[in-house]
Amino acid sequence: MCRWLAYSGSPVLLEDLLYAPAHSLIDQSLHSRLGAETTNGDGFGVGWYGESETPAFFKSTEPAWNDRNLRELSAHIRSGLVFAHIRASSGTPVQQTNCHPFRYGRWLWMHNGAIAHFHDVKRELMLAVDPSLYSHLEGSTDSEAFFLLALTMGLEHNPPTAVARAVGTIEHAGRARGIKHPIQMTVATSDGSSVWAFRYSSEGASRSLFYSTRVDTLRAQHPEVAVLRELSDESRLVVSEPLGDLAGAWNEVPESSYGVIQQGQDELHPFVPRPPS
Amino acid sequence: MCRWLAYSGSPVLLEDLLYAPAHSLIDQSLHSRLGAETTNGDGFGVGWYGESETPAFFKSTEPAWNDRNLRELSAHIRSGLVFAHIRASSGTPVQQTNCHPFRYGRWLWMHNGAIAHFHDVKRELMLAVDPSLYSHLEGSTDSEAFFLLALTMGLEHNPPTAVARAVGTIEHAGRARGIKHPIQMTVATSDGSSVWAFRYSSEGASRSLFYSTRVDTLRAQHPEVAVLRELSDESRLVVSEPLGDLAGAWNEVPESSYGVIQQGQDELHPFVPRPPS
Amino acid sequence: MCRWLAYSGSPVLLEDLLYAPAHSLIDQSLHSRLGAETTNGDGFGVGWYGESETPAFFKSTEPAWNDRNLRELSAHIRSGLVFAHIRASSGTPVQQTNCHPFRYGRWLWMHNGAIAHFHDVKRELMLAVDPSLYSHLEGSTDSEAFFLLALTMGLEHNPPTAVARAVGTIEHAGRARGIKHPIQMTVATSDGSSVWAFRYSSEGASRSLFYSTRVDTLRAQHPEVAVLRELSDESRLVVSEPLGDLAGAWNEVPESSYGVIQQGQDELHPFVPRPPS
Amino acid sequence: MCRWLAYSGSPVLLEDLLYAPAHSLIDQSLHSRLGAETTNGDGFGVGWYGESETPAFFKSTEPAWNDRNLRELSAHIRSGLVFAHIRASSGTPVQQTNCHPFRYGRWLWMHNGAIAHFHDVKRELMLAVDPSLYSHLEGSTDSEAFFLLALTMGLEHNPPTAVARAVGTIEHAGRARGIKHPIQMTVATSDGSSVWAFRYSSEGASRSLFYSTRVDTLRAQHPEVAVLRELSDESRLVVSEPLGDLAGAWNEVPESSYGVIQQGQDELHPFVPRPPS
Repeated sequence: MCRWLAYSGSPVLLEDLLYAPAHSLIDQSLHSRLGAETTNGDGFGVGWYGESETPAFFKSTEPAWNDRNLRELSAHIRSGLVFAHIRASSGTPVQQTNCHPFRYGRWLWMHNGAIAHFHDVKRELMLAVDPSLYSHLEGSTDSEAFFLLALTMGLEHNPPTAVARAVGTIEHAGRARGIKHPIQMTVATSDGSSVWAFRYSSEGASRSLFYSTRVDTLRAQHPEVAVLRELSDESRLVVSEPLGDLAGAWNEVPESSYGVIQQGQDELHPFVPRPPS
Repeated sequence: MCRWLAYSGSPVLLEDLLYAPAHSLIDQSLHSRLGAETTNGDGFGVGWYGESETPAFFKSTEPAWNDRNLRELSAHIRSGLVFAHIRASSGTPVQQTNCHPFRYGRWLWMHNGAIAHFHDVKRELMLAVDPSLYSHLEGSTDSEAFFLLALTMGLEHNPPTAVARAVGTIEHAGRARGIKHPIQMTVATSDGSSVWAFRYSSEGASRSLFYSTRVDTLRAQHPEVAVLRELSDESRLVVSEPLGDLAGAWNEVPESSYGVIQQGQDELHPFVPRPPS
Repeated sequence: MCRWLAYSGSPVLLEDLLYAPAHSLIDQSLHSRLGAETTNGDGFGVGWYGESETPAFFKSTEPAWNDRNLRELSAHIRSGLVFAHIRASSGTPVQQTNCHPFRYGRWLWMHNGAIAHFHDVKRELMLAVDPSLYSHLEGSTDSEAFFLLALTMGLEHNPPTAVARAVGTIEHAGRARGIKHPIQMTVATSDGSSVWAFRYSSEGASRSLFYSTRVDTLRAQHPEVAVLRELSDESRLVVSEPLGDLAGAWNEVPESSYGVIQQGQDELHPFVPRPPS
Repeated sequence: MCRWLAYSGSPVLLEDLLYAPAHSLIDQSLHSRLGAETTNGDGFGVGWYGESETPAFFKSTEPAWNDRNLRELSAHIRSGLVFAHIRASSGTPVQQTNCHPFRYGRWLWMHNGAIAHFHDVKRELMLAVDPSLYSHLEGSTDSEAFFLLALTMGLEHNPPTAVARAVGTIEHAGRARGIKHPIQMTVATSDGSSVWAFRYSSEGASRSLFYSTRVDTLRAQHPEVAVLRELSDESRLVVSEPLGDLAGAWNEVPESSYGVIQQGQDELHPFVPRPPS
C-alpha cells in the first residue's frame, strides 16, 4: 500500500534520511521490495518538528521520485524528528488532503495498510468520532478517519490505549458486517517528543516494520561507518523496510506489538485491540 | 464565491461557450463583475452529456484562464448539454474532488454560494444523508454535501421538491445553531434531458443569476448576429453573469425562484424551502 | 524510458485502447515488461484526430495510472487515429511541455529512447533547426528538438527521408563529440492520414516495437474474439510492447526499419540514417 | 506582468515577509494595485539563502494565494536573504521551470517585465549565450534567457556591468528587427551577500519599484511599531509595490537606475545599457 519512515535523534538534513540511503524511501517509491505494491507513486508527505509549536509538513500529489521541490527542501531543512510517507492509493483520490502524515495540534500520524471495505464502515466509524473533531476531516482516506478515531479515544493522553481502542472499534464495526479481517496496519504517531510505532493486523500477517539498532551498538560493530559517529546514541529509525544492508542494523518489529522511542530507554510491548465496551 | 454556466440546446463546441463570448466564463475567472470575488481561480470543472450513458467531466485545480488542457479539449468536444463552473474557494482545499459539477449516475450538480458556518452543521447534515450515499462523498465542500442531501430527498424523482426539502433541512440545522442566514445559493442540476436552475438565499439577497432570451426572439431582434442562426429555438443558457452585452439577451432569474429548461415550453416558478416535518 | 501506442483504424473509444487490454498502456505505466524502466510515471499524453483540422491532445504530469481526467475523457472520446505516450523521464523536468505527443499543424510526433548526452549536443542541434521553427520549442526534451529537426528536414513532405536526415544529423553531431551511440529511438509520426513508425538505434539494439497483425487474418484465426468483428480490416496498432497474449497478434518491427500505415497496403522498409552532406 | 520582493536583513520567518503585511505579496497575487495585471496567479517561487552553499527554492504552478505548502513552509523557514516572485504569464506555459527566481550556483535572479516580441529574438539571444550555459536553459521564458545572457556578460564578477551589457544586447537585437521598445524590466539578483535591483525600460516608463527606508530612520519616526525594534538597521526590502501604508516607509527607485544592498552603505546609481561593441 504505502511505505513510511520515522526518525528521532540528532538533527539531520532531510536528504540524509530520504535520499542518501542505498534503499532510501525515494528509491522505495519506485522499487519497494517488501510492500504490497512495488510502486508507491500516488503522492507523498513529509512532516517535521522545528522551531514552531506545530510541526510542519510538505505534501504533494506527485511521485516522490520526481518531485523537485522535495529534493530542494530536503537539502535545506534539518530536523531531529521526521515523518515521511509515500503513498500507493488503494482507490481514494490522489490529492494533498489524502497524503500522510496527518496533523492535529502537535500530533502527527501516518499509516500503512487499510481498513478493509472502508466504504461500508466509514459512516459508522465517522459517527464514533467526537463531534468536535468531525469536520476536521479534510480528505477521504481510511487513515485519516482512523486518526480522528484515535484522537477521540484519547491519543493525546495515552497513545497505546487510544490506538488499541480505535482498532477495537474498527474491528467491531467490520466484523458486524461480516468482514473477516477488518484492519491491516503499521502506524506511527508523535507529539514531538516521543514516537509510538504500531504493527498489527486482524489476520496476524501484518505489513513489514523494522527499527534500527542502538547507535552505540552499531558504532562498536562498524567503527568504519562515518555517519554513525555523528549520531547521538538515542537516534532511532522506524521504517517499513530496511534502508540498507548494514549487518545488524535492522530488527523486525514483532507481530502485534508497538514500540516507544523516547528520552531514556526505548520500549517494546505487545499490542492488543480493545473492543468497545 | 464562484461563477457557473449551464447550456442546453444545439450541440456546440465547448470553446464557443467558454472562450468565445466577450465576457466569457474564462474571462470571469480573472475579472468577474458581479461575483463576491473578482478572481475565480481555485480550480474549475466542465461536465457534458455525450454518447455515453453517464455524463463526462474534466476538472482541474488550476485556474481556468491558464489551463491548456481546457483550451485543447474545448476546441474538440461538442455537446448539447454543458455545465461549467469556476471556483473561488471560501477555505476548503483546492482539489479536483472539490471542483463542480458533482455527478451521481446521470445527474450533474453545481452550486454558487455557501452553507453558512458549514463546519458547524456538517455532521448533522451528513447524518441526514441516506447511509447508502454517505461514502459517496469524495471532497470536503458544502456543495457536495448539499448534493447528497438533495439526492437523499428525491432529486432523481422530483428536483424542485428535493431541493426545497434539502434547503429546508439546511436552514433548520443552521437556525437551531443560531445561524441567521444558513444558505446562499444558485444551483443547477440536470439529468441529461432537462436542466433545473435555482436562485435562493435565506437572507433574500441571492447571488446573481440570468437566463438567455428565446433564440427566435433574439434572432428577430438581431438578424445580423450570425451565431443565432445556427442555434435551435430551444437553445438556452443560464449563467451567473451575462456573457456579453447583446441588448435584450439576458433576463435576471427572480429572487426565490427556479426555472426548468426542457423540451417544449420552459418554466419559471417560485422557490420555497420545505422545513423537515 | 517510455512506452507508446499508435492506433489507426475504425473509430474507437480511447478507453478501449488505453485501459481495456490485459497489458494495456495504463498497466505498462506501472508494470512495463520490456521497457528500460518498469515504471513510466512521469506524465503522459494522448493525441487524437477528430473533427477539427488540428489534432487534439490531453497531457498531464501525473502518472497515467492515477489520472482521473484521463479515465473520464477516455470513456467519452472516440477517434480513428490515436497516439498515446507514457513517460519515464531520464532527467528533464516533468512538465506538460515535455509530454509527448508533440504537435505542429496537422502533425503529431512521439518518441521512446534518447539522444545520448543531449546536454552536450543540444546547442548544435538547435542551431540546425530552421530559424522559423526555433521558438516553437516549448519544453526541454531531446524528443521535441528531434521533432523540430525532422520538420526542418522536410517531415511534412517526406517523413522517411526527413527522419533519416534528422537522425544522420544527430549521429554526426554526437560522433563529432566522441559519443559512441548517439541515438536510441522508436518514433511515431502522423499527418492525420498515415502513420509512420521507426525503430532504430546507433548501437543496433533498439527499444522494442511491435505492430499488430491484419485484422482479417486475426479474425479468421480467432473467430471467438468479439472485438475483432467490430474493427475494419485496415485497423492497426503499433506499440512499444504487446497489449495482450493473443497468439499471432503481434509482430516485432525489425531492427533499423520503418513501417507506414496507410489507406491500402501498409508497408515495411529498411531505415538508414542520412549523414549531413 | 509579475510582482516580486527581495529582502536582506535580520533573519525572519518567510510568513512575516509574505503573508503578514497589509498589502503582502500574497495579497498582490489576487489584488495587485500597481501591476500591469491585477491578478498574478500563474505560479510563484520563493528562493532563500540558508545553511547550504547553494540557495534553496520552492516553486509551484498554483496561485500563491491558495498554495498550502507555501503557507506551511513560510511558517517554518527563516532566512536573512529572501527572493519571492508571483507570476502573471504573458503567454509562456505555467510550469515550475518558468517560475522565478532562477538559480545558477550561488546566484538568484528574478524579473518583472518582458523582452518585447521575445518569440522573434529568442534565437539570436540564445546564440549570444555562452555555449557552456546554453543547455542550462530549463524553461521557456524571456526572463531565464535574460539571466543566461547576464551570466554570459559576467554577472558573477560585475553585476551592474553585466546587466547593462545584457540589456544592450537585447535592445540591439530588438531594434534590428524594428521593435521600438525592446525591453521592460525590474530585476533583482543576488550572490547571497549583496542584492542588486534594477529598474529600466527602453521606453522610459518602467514597471514600479520601491525600496524601504532605513530601519533606524523608520524606528525613530514610528517608535510604536514593534516589528521595527526586531530588525537590524541594515534590513531592507525592495518590492514591486509597497507592502503597507506606513508613512515614509517606501521610496520609489528612480527610472533607469539600480540599487545595491550590501554590508555598510547601500548605493543607488543610474543605469545605462551598453550596446554590443
